[in-house]
Amino acid sequence: MPQAPASGGPALGTVAVVGVGLIGGSLALALKARGTCREVIGADAAPLDKALSLGVVDRAVSVEEAAAQADVVVLSTPVGAFPEVARRIRPALRPEAVVTDTGSVKRYVLEHVGPLFKGRFVGAHPIAGKERSGVEAATPDLFDGAHCILTPEIDCDADAAETVSRLWRGTGARVTTMPADVHDQVFACVSHLPHLVAYALMATVDRTRPGGVDPASFAAGGLRDFTRVAGSDPVMWRDICLTNPDAVTAMLDAYVHDLGVLKEAIRRGDGEALRTAFEAAQRVRERVTQ
Amino acid sequence: MPQAPASGGPALGTVAVVGVGLIGGSLALALKARGTCREVIGADAAPLDKALSLGVVDRAVSVEEAAAQADVVVLSTPVGAFPEVARRIRPALRPEAVVTDTGSVKRYVLEHVGPLFKGRFVGAHPIAGKERSGVEAATPDLFDGAHCILTPEIDCDADAAETVSRLWRGTGARVTTMPADVHDQVFACVSHLPHLVAYALMATVDRTRPGGVDPASFAAGGLRDFTRVAGSDPVMWRDICLTNPDAVTAMLDAYVHDLGVLKEAIRRGDGEALRTAFEAAQRVRERVTQ
Repeated sequence: MPQAPASGGPALGTVAVVGVGLIGGSLALALKARGTCREVIGADAAPLDKALSLGVVDRAVSVEEAAAQADVVVLSTPVGAFPEVARRIRPALRPEAVVTDTGSVKRYVLEHVGPLFKGRFVGAHPIAGKERSGVEAATPDLFDGAHCILTPEIDCDADAAETVSRLWRGTGARVTTMPADVHDQVFACVSHLPHLVAYALMATVDRTRPGGVDPASFAAGGLRDFTRVAGSDPVMWRDICLTNPDAVTAMLDAYVHDLGVLKEAIRRGDGEALRTAFEAAQRVRERVTQ
Repeated sequence: MPQAPASGGPALGTVAVVGVGLIGGSLALALKARGTCREVIGADAAPLDKALSLGVVDRAVSVEEAAAQADVVVLSTPVGAFPEVARRIRPALRPEAVVTDTGSVKRYVLEHVGPLFKGRFVGAHPIAGKERSGVEAATPDLFDGAHCILTPEIDCDADAAETVSRLWRGTGARVTTMPADVHDQVFACVSHLPHLVAYALMATVDRTRPGGVDPASFAAGGLRDFTRVAGSDPVMWRDICLTNPDAVTAMLDAYVHDLGVLKEAIRRGDGEALRTAFEAAQRVRERVTQ
């Protein structure tokens, strides 16, 4: 008999995770560890032998079987694959089932996935990650204390929103709700922009050879701190950029403006402006690291 | 009797460190731990009570006394203070003494400090640091295995260059020589640019409030990795920007170009270009982290 969920409400039934990598796998482990649902079934384009042997999912099924058997379906592939997966899920889905996702962009998902499921879709974005990816890196505590943003549309069914909220609270996450457009701008700022900043920095380093010297040989802390971000999965980040282009390019413009402010201060030798800007950055840093 | 230095040559005599913070203090500790010199004396604008009680320097003296007593004087204040310190040192300096520094920029130092000491000045830049600054953070192993770049001018005395090389080898550092202009471009790329990149990112985060939401509340790994760099000492980084303006603004231009390449790929929905760029960044990252 499953353990009662931490939130006190009744256990969810069968949760199907489509795409069992770091995030989908950690979700499955967290739900099982906390008794939030009766069982977790997995579907993936790749074989799920590893997820099964690690005990991450109880059964491996096809996407169509997952749709037919699940009370909650969680899309956890790269975002670019969501529309295709959603089309395969739709015909078999039970009317009372709920669909959610773990994608890093939300307006695109609402537009390309939401309409297939009418009021039964509720977008979600758990704010968690690791340097390593893949199901081998999945852990049951990945979402413990982490934010999970829900972006329910105004016409979504109240019980669907409550089910998705219960799902994520049942992983240990702190659930917050905001409009999809606000979400996409917030994460363009704190996540998508920083990744592009790091990727571009590697490109600049790559094409710089003063006096024939490779600067990478002398990289100290300054550059090294950026390398974890620059090592992120290229396909995942391609998809994020392509599915949140307006917010991301607007943030890039804002950022290039702020670089230009520093450049002009350097050019005119304005030490006071530089010091003031650097001190302001320290104060923002303190807000970020709280 | 002092222990023989690791390099096998004779011990240096009295080394004077002017500016006993993280770098100057760690240099003093490393020289003492390895028996590279007979004694280390310290001079600083602030009282050296802490450096004395921690055993970082053997004696605390004035800048003028340091100049009169030292075989090697190491300038280790913020770079902006070097010209003033050099003017105070010059009259008392013994003719056979050697002057070096630990500054992060080298062309500026050669132009503003070098001429005061003719062939007795040899610039140096140890590539080491920590999140914490100040003499309390100093350790004898800070330079162990780290690069130290020397930028001897063509007219510097051979024995002065050899003394400074022996000084830094006697901290455990790996000594490399390059022209000052090459140094300044290499470090504009791998150190000064990354700091400006991080400072500007904090400014962008600070002025972004989508739907009234503070993005800093939702900062995940992406942004957090940049915060250590953005927390660096504002005065030190002001001085670096003001004393290496040409290389720094040229690197900013190159970097804004690379951001623009990514932005255009996003705008035209060119997933192949984005993926290729992100994969190239991963390869640079591997060079950097080696």
